[in-house]
Amino acid sequence: MRALVLLVCLSVGCLAQKPQPCSSPALMSGSLSVSAQNDRLALAKYTYDEVGQRISLRELGTFGNKTFFHLDILLLYQEGIMYRINRKAGTCVQKHLSEGFHPLAVPKDATLVGQYVLGSSSVPGEGVLVNTWAGKLQMRKGTAEYMTTVTEFGCLPVSTMFCKNNERWVVVSFFDNVAGMADPQDFIPPPFCNDDRLEEEEEENLTAFISLF
Amino acid sequence: MRALVLLVCLSVGCLAQKPQPCSSPALMSGSLSVSAQNDRLALAKYTYDEVGQRISLRELGTFGNKTFFHLDILLLYQEGIMYRINRKAGTCVQKHLSEGFHPLAVPKDATLVGQYVLGSSSVPGEGVLVNTWAGKLQMRKGTAEYMTTVTEFGCLPVSTMFCKNNERWVVVSFFDNVAGMADPQDFIPPPFCNDDRLEEEEEENLTAFISLF
Repeated sequence: MRALVLLVCLSVGCLAQKPQPCSSPALMSGSLSVSAQNDRLALAKYTYDEVGQRISLRELGTFGNKTFFHLDILLLYQEGIMYRINRKAGTCVQKHLSEGFHPLAVPKDATLVGQYVLGSSSVPGEGVLVNTWAGKLQMRKGTAEYMTTVTEFGCLPVSTMFCKNNERWVVVSFFDNVAGMADPQDFIPPPFCNDDRLEEEEEENLTAFISLF
Repeated sequence: MRALVLLVCLSVGCLAQKPQPCSSPALMSGSLSVSAQNDRLALAKYTYDEVGQRISLRELGTFGNKTFFHLDILLLYQEGIMYRINRKAGTCVQKHLSEGFHPLAVPKDATLVGQYVLGSSSVPGEGVLVNTWAGKLQMRKGTAEYMTTVTEFGCLPVSTMFCKNNERWVVVSFFDNVAGMADPQDFIPPPFCNDDRLEEEEEENLTAFISLF
């Protein structure tokens, strides 16, 4: 009997060593960059709230010519509304969100590409252990191939490559992630956002970008 | 006087906090991937020896269709010879190396883009601190823009983006780096490499690839 228990424990232990699809922390703040073939590198700060189903993208800009659009995007999925905010100009456009909230996680049917060390494992503090997963996602319009890398410990997003309907690849890199909501204020629309300016149509590019989350 | 010494120490301490261009370990082993616009992801194992001025690239392959070329490339800069080895077929081609050996380092005139955390700094072991540098390199034919990311501690290479003469960007990602030479045998040409098969011309693509180091 004891041998059986030991065998079961060992089996579970061995299984636990194999990377498993995982969910990222429910509350996160950080920065991200988006690069697509032939396009400039776009940067933004983000705050992510899985519990409240909210995503905030702030200070959107491009790296190459250091243009910053002073543009913030606030996505409130429970209300089904997206705010496009220009704080410098004091303008705010609201649109309906057609896609539902997707928690930041490696899909359960993802295939493990491999486990890697970024940096080095030779000295502590010089590297981080990551898992790379690949798969296909069914989207509202067509399918999308993805390859996503998350940390082994904590399931923090590192990068996601994404290709919709065999078109060009888009790469999103996450950095400076911290657990928690750095500023709860990020999710509150500014006073100059009026509810009466709700526009119906949705931007295709922005929807695709958001679906990367 | 004591106050002056303290002031000097504090100043030096503060300066030391600012990331500086750095040199990677003189002996390293690991893996790397190379991706260019519209091209498949290429993978290889590498061993790097700054002291002996030698680079070995092994098991070159592509990720998409899991084709592996059984191709090894051995670069012996002190001898000025490159070996292109197919171990499966038992063939070996030797060529002259026109470019000299470049130690793996962030150039001294590089501009700091920023310091970032890959993964998260919230919990130890969930992230790694990196510095991103950018600049221009004078090459044998024209110039090349680069953006390179190395770890703050250890100066281990993480990724290098490289664009020669405003053509397409090539991205090299390094992973599973360890300090030291995993197998000294990597630098010894196999017995079927005969010195009499020395070819004069050099491949343009391969030279560009090697210059990423």
